[in-house]
Amino acid sequence: MSSTPSGLFISFEGIDGAGKTTHIESMAAAFRDQGRVVTLTREPGGTPLAEKLRTLVLNDAMDPLTEALLIFAARRDHLLQVIEPALARGEVVLCDRFTDATFAYQGAGRGFDLATLAALEQMVQGRSSPTGQPSLRQPDLTVWFDLDPEVAASRLADARVPDRFESQPVAFFRQVAAGYAQRAAEAPQRFARIDADQSRHQVWQQITRVLVRRGWLAIMVAANGGPR
Amino acid sequence: MSSTPSGLFISFEGIDGAGKTTHIESMAAAFRDQGRVVTLTREPGGTPLAEKLRTLVLNDAMDPLTEALLIFAARRDHLLQVIEPALARGEVVLCDRFTDATFAYQGAGRGFDLATLAALEQMVQGRSSPTGQPSLRQPDLTVWFDLDPEVAASRLADARVPDRFESQPVAFFRQVAAGYAQRAAEAPQRFARIDADQSRHQVWQQITRVLVRRGWLAIMVAANGGPR
Repeated sequence: MSSTPSGLFISFEGIDGAGKTTHIESMAAAFRDQGRVVTLTREPGGTPLAEKLRTLVLNDAMDPLTEALLIFAARRDHLLQVIEPALARGEVVLCDRFTDATFAYQGAGRGFDLATLAALEQMVQGRSSPTGQPSLRQPDLTVWFDLDPEVAASRLADARVPDRFESQPVAFFRQVAAGYAQRAAEAPQRFARIDADQSRHQVWQQITRVLVRRGWLAIMVAANGGPR
Repeated sequence: MSSTPSGLFISFEGIDGAGKTTHIESMAAAFRDQGRVVTLTREPGGTPLAEKLRTLVLNDAMDPLTEALLIFAARRDHLLQVIEPALARGEVVLCDRFTDATFAYQGAGRGFDLATLAALEQMVQGRSSPTGQPSLRQPDLTVWFDLDPEVAASRLADARVPDRFESQPVAFFRQVAAGYAQRAAEAPQRFARIDADQSRHQVWQQITRVLVRRGWLAIMVAANGGPR
């Protein structure tokens, strides 16, 4: 048996204002407490090149296909430079958004052709499995912060200056939320739905229950100083 | 009949050092002499966003798929922002490199999967024709400067500081040249092969003959002050 633990790839999804960021930090701390090496990253971005592409996507005007091509180019660089090497070293990769966000924002939110997104996903995340069957690199777990878009909007209004996506009307986020629900329905094993309309503590408890159930965290972390 | 002339889309292809640039300028002058409005542009590039992507492609290290996605993203922006509007206004668009260069450099030169390039070409240049048949936006004419890579290399060595592509070994340019020959064989109506291993004047004569034969330039331009 190898002494290197298996790499673990966890993505975090949800509309803006759902509260992902805090809990990604908490999860990183929880894994580190268990002796795991954690790589914290985000999309679009995560490499010098991908961060430059993120800046273009967030600030420059462009048509939806141009945007999709840039997002998948950034994802390709991110996968090759950061995610795959970290997983090969047995690390835990926590990624703030991944391909599901593209299907939710560009696809469901802005009405861009889902078949084109699926073709790009296959190009960028496709890999040959040991059986020779084509398969996709996907997260081992996607933590989906499900929150009513009205609630998310009121949270955001108090919190920060919106970027090009955050400044969209609530109707847009309804479509994005529906897009996430669709992706979750297509991959129920991979998605863990978190009810994000609860207190921070309660949300964190939901998340730790998912990790404990999968055997990735010991129970002590969930109880935060409770029974060991 | 409309008083607006039909738009004309002409691309210029060939390995680095083949002498395209001078003749693009000459062709622009020739069309302007005939009263046409000419848009001079280039790929990758041609818009503020696409020029930023060009800078990344020429300077940043990246895998071939990332590069292909960025090149086609730049092409999409270029098509929508510059080429299609100019053609709709009836202008002559002269473009220094277009999709054939991607097949020649990334495909034949660097061995990147041609089927993936064809899928991206279909995504970015696909359009529905009046008959409902899918078709591709392609140049009306591609002027292909065919030159032995050894000759091109010796020309370049005297001329300028090479970029990431120009600094490749001659063997690379042999593959690129073969890639252009392949594309030309697949679209013989669109391609006009120019023997670029001749004097500047002789090369220009070859080019004007092509334009005159297609009825796009009057004979006087070819003769440069000769019979009218």
